[in-house]
Order: sequence, then structure tokens, then C-alpha cells
Amino acid sequence: MSIQGSVHVLAFDVFGTVVDWHGSITREVEALGLGIDGAEFALAWRAGYKPAMQRVMAGQQGWTLLDDLHLGILDEVLVQFGVTSLTEEQKHDLNKAWHRLDPWPDAVEGLRRLKQRFTLCTLSNGNLGLLANMAKRAGLPWDCILGAEVFRQYKPHPDTYLGVARVFDVAPAMVMMVAAHQNDLDSARSFGLKTAYIERPLEFGAANTKDVSASPANDFHATSLADLADQLGC
Amino acid sequence: MSIQGSVHVLAFDVFGTVVDWHGSITREVEALGLGIDGAEFALAWRAGYKPAMQRVMAGQQGWTLLDDLHLGILDEVLVQFGVTSLTEEQKHDLNKAWHRLDPWPDAVEGLRRLKQRFTLCTLSNGNLGLLANMAKRAGLPWDCILGAEVFRQYKPHPDTYLGVARVFDVAPAMVMMVAAHQNDLDSARSFGLKTAYIERPLEFGAANTKDVSASPANDFHATSLADLADQLGC
Repeated sequence: MSIQGSVHVLAFDVFGTVVDWHGSITREVEALGLGIDGAEFALAWRAGYKPAMQRVMAGQQGWTLLDDLHLGILDEVLVQFGVTSLTEEQKHDLNKAWHRLDPWPDAVEGLRRLKQRFTLCTLSNGNLGLLANMAKRAGLPWDCILGAEVFRQYKPHPDTYLGVARVFDVAPAMVMMVAAHQNDLDSARSFGLKTAYIERPLEFGAANTKDVSASPANDFHATSLADLADQLGC
Repeated sequence: MSIQGSVHVLAFDVFGTVVDWHGSITREVEALGLGIDGAEFALAWRAGYKPAMQRVMAGQQGWTLLDDLHLGILDEVLVQFGVTSLTEEQKHDLNKAWHRLDPWPDAVEGLRRLKQRFTLCTLSNGNLGLLANMAKRAGLPWDCILGAEVFRQYKPHPDTYLGVARVFDVAPAMVMMVAAHQNDLDSARSFGLKTAYIERPLEFGAANTKDVSASPANDFHATSLADLADQLGC
């Protein structure tokens, strides 16, 4: 059977794959007029994300939603950039910038086309409220929002990838992970999921273009979600 | 502030409130041509649901998805109705009839209107896969699917009602529970949520019309989701 025929569920990484976190956070930080480089601030904020998750995964910190991890990192990055002028309210509002990330230009239309044929879910380390608010604002037509908060584990824990298959009561090979990150796809593949890579060369901004070369290990390699829809015959 | 202004999230009971489980299960059972009364079978199947949940809530059984509770009850009800002709595959397919419930005629349009102004989520004891498959088939435009599987508790456990407020990072009074069952609304209210009752006199079929009289304890009482949208100015 073709992959198009055997895959029922597409599970999407979100940050970087569907939405442009770097451009959106840069925009929000610049709008505050703090006299700092928004693009550098965005990179620093995002750079704190993996170490923060790893503290939770190593058991040094109890289960924590991404919103709360983001807020802790924000405190550190504000100090690092010498910003002392934000009120608590402004800080909490800035933290919610992660709920207001803009989709890449091809994302909404690509998802709409893919949705005609597949069940679309998120598989993100973002918390449910963040992902739902983002989807409502951006018009992302998910059939179901899944992620770390549902499985009580962050990617790349097996419970997340295999959790999607369990939620939909299908074999892992009937789920295809769609992501702009090879390590996410490598993990998904190791648990039996199919994989599709999406090129997002500008994920870290125009000053830091990313290697988006194809890996033969993936089932699909696409330049955009619209291209993936084309390749899947949607 | 008016309720319309202070409520951000509408949390919907699903079985009976948004979809017609009795009519849909009756239809599926009758379609099998087993020579049994589909409407009676539907009532018996549904009647097993509360005792099954209570066994889990009392700790007599580990955490179980509604799909699996339904399957266990189905086995008992098939015996009760003297049906021995179904294969395992047919039984599993019949169990998935709960994923194929039809919406009440006003539901899709009512939800679409309410979605313009509020964040819409489910708060159901159904499992995520069931609710997502149902929404995709019926066109129910949820912003987020929440339920027992996310909170690892069934309604009326407080973690479910308060869990919705936590997911969206709002006060309980900014969430309104929408249901066709006074006991669900009574529980929601006891934890600080607003409540809206929806009349579904035919929930148990035309032969068993249900009392749908108004309770003054609820914030809204509506004849349909379209009526609720009218009352909320959507």
C-alpha cells in the first residue's frame, strides 16, 4: 500500500515547522521599544528552552507547562539584556507572545488541503492553552491538539510519539510526523512513525540560515506544507 | 461586567448536548439487521456507562478510556439481548459507532456562531480519539478537545472543571459549562464556573422524553445552541 493510503494521521511539530517563532518574537520584542535587538533576544529566549526542558526530564524539576518554562527563561534573558523596566503585567503579556506566533505563509492553506485527506494533530512541547490560542488566532485547522501536556512527557520521550498512535488507535506506521527538525523526525522514526521534513531555512532568522538538506531516511522532503500537500496528492 | 464580557471559554458536554447518541446508536444497531430493538439496545448500552465509570473512580479498575469501557459494556449488552452472531471485527466496528454520532440539527451552525466570540472546547468523558473522529466527521469546529483523558479523571471530578480554567489560564468564572444535564451544570457551578443549560427533550428517544424545565441556578437556559448564540449576542 502507498504511504498516502496507509497513513491516517499527520502529527505536526509546531514551533518552526508551522509557525515562525523567530520572526514573531522579534516583532513583539521590538514593539516594546526597549532599545534592544529583538532578533537576538528571540534567539536567547529560545535557546533557554532545551536546558529548561532537560531539567524537567531529568527530574530536577516537577512537571512544568511550557508557558511556565518560558516565563522562567524570560526572567533570565531580561537580566542578560539589562532590561529592568517591565512590570509583572508586561512580562506576563510578553510571555504570551508565544501564543501569538504567526504561521509561515504556506501553513494555513497547506493544512486545509491536508485536512481533506488526513487527521491533523499537533505533537508539540507547547501546552494546550498556548497551542489552542495560537490556532484560533492564526486559523490553524487542527482536528486535535496533542502535546506534552496530554502525555506528561516532552518530546523526544517515546510516550509522545507512540501516544499519538494510541489516541487514534492506529499502528505507529499509520502516523506521519511532520517537522522542520531532523532530530524530531529521527526520534519519531525510531518508534515506527513515518516522517516528512519541511524546509524552514529562515527558522532562526535571515542572519542565521539553516541547513535544510534532504535526509534519505525520511519518507518525504518538502519545501513547504503546500508542497507536502502536492506530494501527498491533496 | 456582563457574562458575555467576562466569559472567555465555553466548555461543552458532548453526548446528548451536542450529538444525538440515542438516535445515532439506534440507527447503527438497526443497520446490522440483528432483529433486535435498536432504541432499547442504545438505552441499555448507555445505561452501563455510569456504573463502569464509577468502578474506575472507586479505584476498582485502573484508568480506562471510554472506548474500552464501551467495549466492555457492549459485551454484556450483547449477551443480554441474546446476540451471538457478531465477529470480533464487527463488535469493534460497532463500538466505534460512538465516534460516528450525528450532531443535533442546530449544533454545527450554533457552534460556528459561538466560535466567533468565545473559545470553544469539549469537556467530555469521551476519549480524545473518539471526540476528534466525531468532530471531523460531524464538522464540529472545536478550538480544543479536552476531556477525561487529559485530566485523568472523569466528570464530575473537580480536576476536570477546574482543569479547563487551568488550561486556558483564566479564573473558573471565565469558563461557562454548556450541557443538557443539570447534574453536570450543578458540579461545574460548585467549582465556580458559569452554566448554560440546553434543552434536549429527545436525548433518550421520542418514547422517553426528558424533563427540560429551567433551573434558576443556571446563568442561561436555551432551547438549542443557536438559541444560546442568540442570547449571547453572537
